[in-house]
Amino acid sequence: MTSPPLQCDADATPPGAYAVIFTSKRSGSDADAYAQLAARMDELARSQPGFLGVESARGEDGLGITVSYWDSLDAIANWKRNVEHLDAQRRGRGDLYDAFTTRICRVERVYSFSAKTD
Amino acid sequence: MTSPPLQCDADATPPGAYAVIFTSKRSGSDADAYAQLAARMDELARSQPGFLGVESARGEDGLGITVSYWDSLDAIANWKRNVEHLDAQRRGRGDLYDAFTTRICRVERVYSFSAKTD
Repeated sequence: MTSPPLQCDADATPPGAYAVIFTSKRSGSDADAYAQLAARMDELARSQPGFLGVESARGEDGLGITVSYWDSLDAIANWKRNVEHLDAQRRGRGDLYDAFTTRICRVERVYSFSAKTD
Repeated sequence: MTSPPLQCDADATPPGAYAVIFTSKRSGSDADAYAQLAARMDELARSQPGFLGVESARGEDGLGITVSYWDSLDAIANWKRNVEHLDAQRRGRGDLYDAFTTRICRVERVYSFSAKTD
């Protein structure tokens, strides 16, 4: 997987950008297959027009939150109907997730803090 | 802590609601103190007017994403200036986090999926 490390970067998401909040509960199915598919979708999303950034976390309870940021609703619509992504969505509904919710949101305001760590 | 379990529930966040996406990177400071404060803020947020729901995940790399949902920007502004919450924000900038970003977003569309699990 060649994607860059997870970011905590407000600069890429100015007000007017769009956030896709994807909240999911993993099923008990094949963890390796899931990890491979998730990595591929991450890589593919990053190559889409209008992609701004992505942050992802999954806790020990199996609840995961991935937020991707896009410069327009059109960019999100294009990503949603990407052929390889459509296939992943089918697999997600098939056996990878017990439940998920996708919320498309318009970024209104951004605040950030960073300690002097380097 | 008396809060209900984490949800994956689209119903509480209709279009027109607001999401606060709080992305944070923990510092290496006192994990117990942090866990106590986080649990207290979760409990306190749930008691605020206009609160709709919250979902939270933190991965092994220390990146955490908490998304809380509110019925209006006024409700978010009130929560932001809650006195106990202000004190927690100060502690967050002091030593609990290396970095964090808060993004206030308007929910535009919601889709959800749930497998038949019960």
